[in-house]
Parts: sequence; structure tokens; C-alpha cells
Amino acid sequence: MTVDARSTARARIEQALDRFFDDRVRAGAAYGPDFSDLWARGAEHARGGKLLRPRLFLEAVEAFEATEGPHDPVGQESVDSLAAVIEILHFAFLLHDDVIDGDVVRRHRPNLIGTIRDLHPEAPAASSLHWGSSAAILMGDLLLSSAVLRCARLPLPGPVHARVLDLVDEAITETVAGEQLDVGLGDGAIAPDLSTVLSMTTLKTATYSFALPLRLAGALSGAGPRVDATLAEVGRDLGFAFQVQDDLLTMFGDPAAHGKDVLSDLREGKQTVLVAFLRSTERWHEVADVLGAPALREADADRVRTVVQECGARDFAEHLVAERLREVMVGLDRSLLADPVRRVITDCVERIEGRDA
Amino acid sequence: MTVDARSTARARIEQALDRFFDDRVRAGAAYGPDFSDLWARGAEHARGGKLLRPRLFLEAVEAFEATEGPHDPVGQESVDSLAAVIEILHFAFLLHDDVIDGDVVRRHRPNLIGTIRDLHPEAPAASSLHWGSSAAILMGDLLLSSAVLRCARLPLPGPVHARVLDLVDEAITETVAGEQLDVGLGDGAIAPDLSTVLSMTTLKTATYSFALPLRLAGALSGAGPRVDATLAEVGRDLGFAFQVQDDLLTMFGDPAAHGKDVLSDLREGKQTVLVAFLRSTERWHEVADVLGAPALREADADRVRTVVQECGARDFAEHLVAERLREVMVGLDRSLLADPVRRVITDCVERIEGRDA
Repeated sequence: MTVDARSTARARIEQALDRFFDDRVRAGAAYGPDFSDLWARGAEHARGGKLLRPRLFLEAVEAFEATEGPHDPVGQESVDSLAAVIEILHFAFLLHDDVIDGDVVRRHRPNLIGTIRDLHPEAPAASSLHWGSSAAILMGDLLLSSAVLRCARLPLPGPVHARVLDLVDEAITETVAGEQLDVGLGDGAIAPDLSTVLSMTTLKTATYSFALPLRLAGALSGAGPRVDATLAEVGRDLGFAFQVQDDLLTMFGDPAAHGKDVLSDLREGKQTVLVAFLRSTERWHEVADVLGAPALREADADRVRTVVQECGARDFAEHLVAERLREVMVGLDRSLLADPVRRVITDCVERIEGRDA
Repeated sequence: MTVDARSTARARIEQALDRFFDDRVRAGAAYGPDFSDLWARGAEHARGGKLLRPRLFLEAVEAFEATEGPHDPVGQESVDSLAAVIEILHFAFLLHDDVIDGDVVRRHRPNLIGTIRDLHPEAPAASSLHWGSSAAILMGDLLLSSAVLRCARLPLPGPVHARVLDLVDEAITETVAGEQLDVGLGDGAIAPDLSTVLSMTTLKTATYSFALPLRLAGALSGAGPRVDATLAEVGRDLGFAFQVQDDLLTMFGDPAAHGKDVLSDLREGKQTVLVAFLRSTERWHEVADVLGAPALREADADRVRTVVQECGARDFAEHLVAERLREVMVGLDRSLLADPVRRVITDCVERIEGRDA
């Protein structure tokens, strides 16, 4: 996709998000100023993202259209609405993830919870935080149900519509299953085996971030089951590589560039591939006491970084990323995908390989 | 509705719930034992209700069918699915309400949060409670999205389908707006004026509990805008009267019969019509210190009961119930509703008047 095409895609997604939120803010106004305010703040926070997922979707739609030549295409408004739905689902998942993790900051700024908490500085701290996190639960519910309702109302041909609903259903189910594993690992209710951490990584992020956009684009162009199966597999592999790369960047990258809070992840005892590998080595006891400790400090984080590096966890994770990306390329070679669609996927591979933030 | 018809209705709803949950438990099994277990426990807790809302819906559907004589009715499976959707939405709202209120008990038994918390007695208490309440957030998300997806997939004629989606959308929006008011009143972020408490009561419960079932039944029979407007108004009034009656029963009724925990409501500082009225009287200072206090005890609750009675709040609430039910009857007299539909509504009025649990 050219730079021009990319900025057009961004503008289309932003307009579709505006249409979605304008509509909801208007409907919400009937229920008083607090509810209007919740929608307005939700909209503001939802619009701050990089739009990775809907952009991948639009690129894939364009690639399928280029492949098929003249046919009966789905209207652009439906395509753009579905791009907005993908971003809204992502934001709804983030909101409930932040509630579950007790996070009040995202990308160096207060998230929706932190913003609403800070509106009443005169109230007791516990009440303000409760007001903020309850707002995030409720906004997540509104976004999740509105996103699904938006899909339900798309004017698509019957079989395409049924397929879109199935894919959205599957993505929500898998994401929640992955989130549940993540919570259980953090709370000690699920044993932190490396294999569980690997499947959590795929379910929680990879499916909705990469497999869903690719498969929805396929569904709109009437792709058959074999093409869909390739898109699902390739999407999960891309998403897995993306997430492990993300864990590597959070641990070893520049916080000013990636905007993640490594201390907060380490204090929560977040189970990443790096931590799960480290746990399986004899160096684990050197940091077992600080990982998951609320009092963990920058010096402890440095020690964790050194041990993760020296025990081989970093190498292991880097190899995992490279291996999955290779599997994507092998999967593509064996697939029925046409060249423009292949190119969308090889672009993703290159972006993940070259990622530094 | 006869006793026979009522038990048939219950059986139909239970079968539709079984179909819904069997389907989801089966789909969930692909994601490992913890996720299957979550669905199985969610299903178990969801199936314990009195089914008031879906029973009202089925009664109303039957009444509209009796009215219209032979026409092209919506298939029974769609009707029953929609009855299950109504109950599932109710349960999803309860789950997130319990998370927000920090409740671990419902009707004298551990709720889903309490049940999942107690699965790991060896874990630290904070981790177990976090695992339980996170599970309730995630189960609520799954139920909310699945309920909307179930509506999206109903094989209904186009205009009826669009109307059903609009009504479900409106009910979710209103319920969340009411829940937000309730949370804001409890956290001191919204001023507890009597009028705010009255509108919270309608939004949070009345709309989805009474207006939604009646209006959905109307929509399935192709009711026009005037009939729909009557059903909306009557439903909100019935639901408001039901909820205020509920608040009265919780405060003055027999806990063994109604199963509510009055101490927990008083400790949370729950803003009911009774409390809001009391606040506007000069007797407020006598209990202001114990209402909302986590240390509130049975003797304090007795004092609150006495003051609520003596300040006139109980009389006020009882008059409110009677007045709204009278408005329902006046609204019916002026309406275009046919006799069988009228009878469903007058039955509701009688049940609310005679309610003691």
C-alpha cells in the first residue's frame, strides 16, 4: 500500500469511527449529562489508537478486490463500518483488560479509568477509583454490544452476513478465553507452563488482531473454506509473532518509543513467554521473589532483564518470532492466495521483523 | 395464563436456555478445561432465576397472537430463543452489577464470583477474589455478546428483525445508563436528589425487565408505533412499581422469603427511593453516619428501619407504587391494546400489588 493509500485508509477508518460515536453520543444524550459525558470520554480515548487492525483489514479488502476483478463488491460504507467495528472491539477488550489489571495509565497518559477517577479530586480515593473502573466496565459493555449490533445491521448478502457474524463470534470467544488464561496465570489459579503461556498469547491477542481482519476481508469477497483456513492460520502466526515481539520490546526496548510500563507488568507478575522460559531454568530462583512483588523497583527490573538475557529466554523468544514468521511464509507458498493478498501478508511479516516500537 | 400454560412456558424457556448454553459450552470446549468450566458454571448460575422476564414475554406473545387471529406468525423457535435472550441479558447485567458492588452472594448462596473464588482455598484471598470477579466480568462479556449475536441470527422478516435489534439496543443502553447513575450515587459522584434516584430506578431495571419483554412481543406481531409507545410507557411504570416494591420488601419484608441482604445494601449506601426520601427530611442526621458504613450491624439496620418508617419514607414509597400502578390502568384505558394484551398487563399489576417476596 502506498503512503497515499495508507493516509486514505486512516481517514476512512477515522470517519467511520466518528459516524459510530456521533450516533452513540447522540442516542446517549437522552439519559442525562453523566451518561453523555461517559460516551464522549469513551469516544476520545477510543480514537487515540494506531488503527493497526482496521488498517490491515482495509488493505486485505483492497487486495481481495484487486484479485477478483469486476464482481459485485460489498458497498464501501459496510467495509468502513466493519473496520470501525474491529477497532471498537479492540478498545472494548483493552478497557476490560485495564479493569482486570487495575491499570490507570496507557501510553504515558491516564486511561479512561484514570481520567474518570481524576474528575473528583475531592472524593475519597477508593470511591473515585471505583467510579473510574465501573465506568470502564460499563463503557466496555456498551462498546461490545454496539459493535456486535453494528455487525448485525450491516446490509450484506445473507451468506456473507452469516459468515461475518460467525467470525466476530469466534474472535470474541477466543479473546475472552485468552484473557481468562492470562488472569488465571497471574492469580496462580492456572499453572504457568510454557505451553499454556504460548496458547494464551495466541488466543488473547493474535486471533482478533490479525486472524479476524484477514478472515473478514476474505469473507466479504466470498472466500471459500480453504482460503479462510489459510488466513486463520497465517493470522494466528502473525499475531503470535507480533505479541512475542511486543513482550521483547517491553522488556528490552526504549520505553519512550513503545510507551509500555515494564515495571507495572513485572509487578503484576504478567506471564510472558520470557518469564515462562526463565521459570523453566535454574536461574529462576534469582528473581522469583521480585517478580509479581508490588514493591519491585527499577534496579530489580534491571536484574530481571539481565537474568532473562543470560538464561537464554531472550534468544528463545527471538527464535520463536523468527520461526513463526518463517511458518507464515511457508504457509503462503502452499496456499491458494493470490498475489495481492500474499503481499499484504508479507508486508506484515516485514513490519514485525523491523519493529522497534 | 392457566397453571398448565405457565408450566409449559417455563419448560419452553428452560429448553431454549439449555440449547443456548449447550451450544456455547460445546464451542468453549476447544479452548481448554478452564474456559469450559467457566461456561459450565455460568450456565448453572444463569439457570437459577425465576424467569419473570421471559415468562412475561411469552405471555405477551401469546396474547398478541390470540388478538390477531390467523396470520403469518413468527416460528416458535425464534420466539423461544428471544425469551432465552431476555433472561441471558438479565443475567449478564446481574454479573457486572455484582462485580461493581463487590457482592459475592445472591439469594443466600455464593454467586458466580463467590463460587469461583472458593475453588482455590489455598491461594491468597486477594488473588482468589480477583480470579472470581474477573471471571464474572468475562462471563458477562460472553453472555452480552452472545445474546446480541443470537438476536442477529434470528430468522425474522427484515422489518421485524430491525425492530428487535433496535429494542435490544435501546434496552442495553438504558440499563447501562441506569447502572451508571446507581454507581455514581453510591460513589458520591452524582448528587442523590430524589428525582435522580427515581429516574435511576426506571432506567436500571424497569426498561429491560418490563418494557423490553412487552415491546418485543409487540414487535413480533408487527405492532405499530402507537401500540409500541403504550407498551413502553406501561412497561416502564410496571417496572418502576416493581422495583420500589422490591426496595420496600428488602427493607421491611422477611429475608427468608425475599432472599435479599438488607445489611449489605445499607453498608454499600445503596440509594433507594426510601433513602433518598429520608435524606430530604430532618430525621436524616439520625442515621447519616451508619448508612454506607461497612461496620453497620443489625441493630443499626433496625434503627434505619424505624426512622424510614417514622419520617414518612415508607408511606411515600407505598404511595408511589400505588400511583404508578394506577397510571398503568389509566394508560390501558386510553390505549389501543386488545383485551388479551390488556389482561397480561393487569395480571402484572395484580402480582405487583400482592407481592410479598
